[in-house]
Amino acid sequence: MSSSKEIPYKIYLEEEEMPRQYYNVRADMKTKPAPLLNPGNLKPMTAEELEAVFCKELVKQELNNEDRYIDIPEEIRSFYRMYRPSPLVRAYCLEEKLDTPAHIYYKFEGSNTSGSHKLNSAIAQAYYAKKQGLKGVTTETGAGQWGTALSMACAYLDLACDVYMVKVSYEQKPFRRDVMRIYGATVTPSPSTTTAVGRKILEEHPGTTGSLGCAISEAVEAAVSREGYRYVLGSVLNQVLLHQSIIGQETKTALEKYDIKPDVIIGCCGGGSNFGGLISPFMGEKIRGEKDLRIIGAEPASCPSLTRGKYAYDFCDTGKVCPLAKMYTLGSGFIPSPNHAGGLRYHGMSSIVSHLYDDGYIEARTYEQTEVFEAAVAFAKVEGILPAPESSHAIRAAVDEAMRCKETGEDKNIIMGLTGTGYFDMMAYGKYIEGSMGDYIPTDAELEESFASLPKID
Amino acid sequence: MSSSKEIPYKIYLEEEEMPRQYYNVRADMKTKPAPLLNPGNLKPMTAEELEAVFCKELVKQELNNEDRYIDIPEEIRSFYRMYRPSPLVRAYCLEEKLDTPAHIYYKFEGSNTSGSHKLNSAIAQAYYAKKQGLKGVTTETGAGQWGTALSMACAYLDLACDVYMVKVSYEQKPFRRDVMRIYGATVTPSPSTTTAVGRKILEEHPGTTGSLGCAISEAVEAAVSREGYRYVLGSVLNQVLLHQSIIGQETKTALEKYDIKPDVIIGCCGGGSNFGGLISPFMGEKIRGEKDLRIIGAEPASCPSLTRGKYAYDFCDTGKVCPLAKMYTLGSGFIPSPNHAGGLRYHGMSSIVSHLYDDGYIEARTYEQTEVFEAAVAFAKVEGILPAPESSHAIRAAVDEAMRCKETGEDKNIIMGLTGTGYFDMMAYGKYIEGSMGDYIPTDAELEESFASLPKID
Repeated sequence: MSSSKEIPYKIYLEEEEMPRQYYNVRADMKTKPAPLLNPGNLKPMTAEELEAVFCKELVKQELNNEDRYIDIPEEIRSFYRMYRPSPLVRAYCLEEKLDTPAHIYYKFEGSNTSGSHKLNSAIAQAYYAKKQGLKGVTTETGAGQWGTALSMACAYLDLACDVYMVKVSYEQKPFRRDVMRIYGATVTPSPSTTTAVGRKILEEHPGTTGSLGCAISEAVEAAVSREGYRYVLGSVLNQVLLHQSIIGQETKTALEKYDIKPDVIIGCCGGGSNFGGLISPFMGEKIRGEKDLRIIGAEPASCPSLTRGKYAYDFCDTGKVCPLAKMYTLGSGFIPSPNHAGGLRYHGMSSIVSHLYDDGYIEARTYEQTEVFEAAVAFAKVEGILPAPESSHAIRAAVDEAMRCKETGEDKNIIMGLTGTGYFDMMAYGKYIEGSMGDYIPTDAELEESFASLPKID
Repeated sequence: MSSSKEIPYKIYLEEEEMPRQYYNVRADMKTKPAPLLNPGNLKPMTAEELEAVFCKELVKQELNNEDRYIDIPEEIRSFYRMYRPSPLVRAYCLEEKLDTPAHIYYKFEGSNTSGSHKLNSAIAQAYYAKKQGLKGVTTETGAGQWGTALSMACAYLDLACDVYMVKVSYEQKPFRRDVMRIYGATVTPSPSTTTAVGRKILEEHPGTTGSLGCAISEAVEAAVSREGYRYVLGSVLNQVLLHQSIIGQETKTALEKYDIKPDVIIGCCGGGSNFGGLISPFMGEKIRGEKDLRIIGAEPASCPSLTRGKYAYDFCDTGKVCPLAKMYTLGSGFIPSPNHAGGLRYHGMSSIVSHLYDDGYIEARTYEQTEVFEAAVAFAKVEGILPAPESSHAIRAAVDEAMRCKETGEDKNIIMGLTGTGYFDMMAYGKYIEGSMGDYIPTDAELEESFASLPKID
């Protein structure tokens, strides 16, 4: 579907064209995502209960299924102006290399020091914590993108920041760890002896290299046991998808500016924060029947929550201290192979994304690691950006779609989210070029075992 | 000096506002930089002699002291559109933190995978090599920015790329090395046994960790001894400053768009490529007497070619196989302390910059390493970009200027070049936050010893 105006390589919005409100897709959903449950009594979490863990304003956002738009405070917008709007790039060079009639666009979120889209929610969460008069926040980080983003946001607002970093990443990614420290964060390898849940996990699994679910448990305990602290999370939650809607809104405005009609929107899927944020405004139009377009989530074959998970209530963390969420999940005990590079290793998927997927609004694809890196390297050579392994799942899916267009001769507009850079993933890239990177797909038996840990809730 | 329009955080040019020509400052210089000399007969290098080492078209550019503008081929402009124009950012947050009436702007060149401005010249040099029908190019790299940029450009044009990487960087920066390999380059630690000059240096200095001057010698030998190869260099040469003029021209256009009158232009100085490119069009106006502004080069105290070097003909490389250049130099035998982080470790300075400095058009400042990192971390915390150690010399100088404005109450417009990101310099940042980073200033006696290697040429 051609456009009437000539499209530049990069579409930048003016600052005044940036969104002034977050878009809340839940307002447009015909049925709402299932509520978080209290792990004690299995009843929906009340605002009051949630406020013991999360900031007041964020709890409001978490529970708000009604308002389509929520104002972005000027202080947050001012921070956004430092690194946003991010460009929507027309991948002319990739198209030429693929010799496809398709038009490929990518929304690139990697042009800030945190290197990814995570900063969009980090600054919002840190802002509300500061506004509430808190001393600091705690969180966990796996690949390190979220921890980096949060420590940047906290440095900016002069807020303390305690990061529990999955031990294997802490050891293998010293540079990520040091970036957080440069920004003033305290970084603790998880599981640690600083929390009861950490000590318990260490006792039960001596020598464990940790997991995201375990680091979450520690960060939550650290928040609730300390005066003036709350816990913040970089993905999965409704509030995070709300903040990330800035990605989708900017994308939509940029497309409209050049009369480009999107046919396919593609994002990579871990906890769903980038994907949910990217697709939200398009999904709204799709649900309301205003637009007809396909939406595709690309996930790793080694952690396939949408394509092979169960849609059920599950624990969000290993220590089972967090509320339960209804989501596509591999079971809270699931740990992806250590060979799996980068993020996208969470056992569950955002409740919003899960619900939309269950309702048939989203297609999901899985990709093996080596085919993802192959696409990443090909992309890097022609587009001048070394993508994060996470983002490269979306690249792989977009390339596949574009090649299908080559067969059919269709000039579809394919839009993908490029969440970040691979600067901090060079160890994985090194393995790939040496040929020592493997693929790993969990067997049905392994998944069945992991599903056994699912709580029995209807 | 206030501006009439409201200044956004980031001034982006439209693609049609990007320069279509390189600006050649030599055309405006009242006296021209001294020519390169043949190391054999000490006569000015002829085009023919230079063409044995460099591509034909680049030799023309190297020797062209007359044409003020040189067309940028469409193929190069098309590549530029992938990652340019780069933003001119108003450092509102830094200004606020410093509580200065000054207005600080930075031209940020780090938003491409190579992470620095080096790509601007890499694509030009690779393009002319390809156009000449060559098989490949050879080069050296120190900190790795230039090698990364060149391998990206060569991958894009399907040209072979052989990089001699200073051994200490090869070992300490495996990620940089691997990025080049991802882009298909061959990377050899220098000094190596693959060249005669490398073997000679290894014999004379067993166990040496290499130097830029030595890697240059190897790369030149590799180019001239192989069919279909030429040598390319990432800094110092006139042609490189010509290509980098795109930085200064974009900066000038962006300032003019918002009626901003620059009072001070600041860049970091190693070989002079970014600095020369940034200042060129402003320098043209200054020489022609059209504008009155200050131009400051910031260099490391550990490698102070402008502030403590001699203005003399010197060898460009350790092996003395290259033409001689008249420049501010510490002597071709000078090797900065291994404690010195990042680039800016070349013993000499671009002939153009040297000549302009000698003519009094440029001020120079030196900064010690730890005060540079201090400025870098402060900048990162408020501006959301982790700067390269090289770039941080300019930040230090800009902060000092802004603090002077605070004393005097002047609202000067300070423009600085931010050449790249510090993603690949985390080892140095790690040292800094651990407190184990030292300063190093060569003694007068050390410099005298190094000057002794200067050839006796008038």
